[in-house]
Amino acid sequence: MKKLVETIPNFSEGRNPAKIKKILACFENASGVTLLDHHKDPDHNRLVVTAAGEAGALRNAVLRAVDTAVKTIDLRKHKGEHPRIGAVDVIPFVPVGGTSMEEAVALSRSVAKEIWLTSRVPVFLYEESAVHPERKNLPDIRKGEFEGLSQKMKDPKWKPDFGGPSPHPTAGAVAVGARMPLIAFNVNLDTDSMAIAGAIAKAVRHQGGGLRYCRAIPINLRKRGIVQVSMNMTNYVETPLYRALEMVRSEARRYGVTVTGSEIVGLVPLDALVQSSAYYMGLEDFSAEQILEVKLGEAKG
Amino acid sequence: MKKLVETIPNFSEGRNPAKIKKILACFENASGVTLLDHHKDPDHNRLVVTAAGEAGALRNAVLRAVDTAVKTIDLRKHKGEHPRIGAVDVIPFVPVGGTSMEEAVALSRSVAKEIWLTSRVPVFLYEESAVHPERKNLPDIRKGEFEGLSQKMKDPKWKPDFGGPSPHPTAGAVAVGARMPLIAFNVNLDTDSMAIAGAIAKAVRHQGGGLRYCRAIPINLRKRGIVQVSMNMTNYVETPLYRALEMVRSEARRYGVTVTGSEIVGLVPLDALVQSSAYYMGLEDFSAEQILEVKLGEAKG
Repeated sequence: MKKLVETIPNFSEGRNPAKIKKILACFENASGVTLLDHHKDPDHNRLVVTAAGEAGALRNAVLRAVDTAVKTIDLRKHKGEHPRIGAVDVIPFVPVGGTSMEEAVALSRSVAKEIWLTSRVPVFLYEESAVHPERKNLPDIRKGEFEGLSQKMKDPKWKPDFGGPSPHPTAGAVAVGARMPLIAFNVNLDTDSMAIAGAIAKAVRHQGGGLRYCRAIPINLRKRGIVQVSMNMTNYVETPLYRALEMVRSEARRYGVTVTGSEIVGLVPLDALVQSSAYYMGLEDFSAEQILEVKLGEAKG
Repeated sequence: MKKLVETIPNFSEGRNPAKIKKILACFENASGVTLLDHHKDPDHNRLVVTAAGEAGALRNAVLRAVDTAVKTIDLRKHKGEHPRIGAVDVIPFVPVGGTSMEEAVALSRSVAKEIWLTSRVPVFLYEESAVHPERKNLPDIRKGEFEGLSQKMKDPKWKPDFGGPSPHPTAGAVAVGARMPLIAFNVNLDTDSMAIAGAIAKAVRHQGGGLRYCRAIPINLRKRGIVQVSMNMTNYVETPLYRALEMVRSEARRYGVTVTGSEIVGLVPLDALVQSSAYYMGLEDFSAEQILEVKLGEAKG
């Protein structure tokens, strides 16, 4: 089995087609790397790339893209709704297909070091790669954004993990780290009460005393006349999807509300589906190796 | 997406390593074909090969293997516990990964015709490829075996679909056809009563008035002190796994028996897992395209 890593780098350019094209080309033209998706948003003024490949090939592609972004994006002139600290705001690495979290962490740190050495952009390590516990949480690193970075980095608590002591004049800084794949998982309820959806969201999310790797908010699906508990599952291995679903169902029961359905938005790791089948069907000793299409996909690779 | 077909040809040779090696080589050395598995059984005196690839490449590999088997296996000297009609007993083609049943049927018929033209072995089309409804069922074609074939084929009802009027003197005949993948799915019960497992098996299987694409028998798991309903799901699209599981659970209830677990033996198509997740989680608009490993596997292909 090939050891694959996914990366979802966020670049602070969502408007200029020529600059966006240059950044995407770093992934499209890289042998051993697959550009899975990209999303540009003019309001956020941000480009989110999804790519995957083996560690070495992916490392080179990311470094080329960072270099391109640093040379073409000037944060002093950048405006957008999404908070950001640099020309490249954040580079998450996600272990998939046979890669361990440790290997993804090692990759992220090696990329972080090289970014400072070649592009002279200071780097903060976050999430699983964080050396300082107070840098685990990305929003804490982003607080103050590019505009406040120079002042923030004077505080010894915010000395970068690589580089410094000042931000790059035009490209700011970047957060780099390994994290679990994030699954967007929504559960629909047969009520139009946002109060009920809100109470359930609070009950299941970590912040409210619920599941450790679950963020949740209520959403109003006005067109359908129902509400939804919209969740971000930040570690599906430790907090499986089915557990969140069953908890929503159980909490809903006290309001006489039932679950009408659910949805997964975007990509989901195969393991998360295997987990759910194993739980609901009570499958003993089942592994993803038994799945026919995956076996074929691999053998052809 | 590549259009893939799987084939599981059965050869009447499970003892002679040199002959087995020659047959396997036809798949191993074929570019565009993946030998997924093989199983040789000296008691059955039979070799079962599992291979997959795009239609054209798979066709050539199968034809080479048939030619090799016809030249090396003499059914007049063949003894084994498993019923068989020829040096190659049966060649099923299973649509996987983007191939339709119609395409698998077309492939099977083209292979069948070519077997007669090049190897002079008469062919019966069975299952989805059958032209005569009484040939849909493989055991009906096999009845009388190689030894009774010459007499059987004198009956106009059993004129082969390609070739004839007599069987090949040493290689007999072969059944060729397209069918759905067969899933071996077992459900465990918290009782040691074979009577209960037998009654449930009878209730869920097609023959007993149950689910159309389900065969089922009771099995005694003596070591674990429990019994099992052992099922062959012959068309998981029309009769999904979860429906069989929930029916076993519901039938077990009348005996005060509960389902303790289940198992899938061997390979299972990804779609069957997606089906089950969609049912139990109530997933709306979910497709296999959203599964990360599969997307990667494909893109790398």
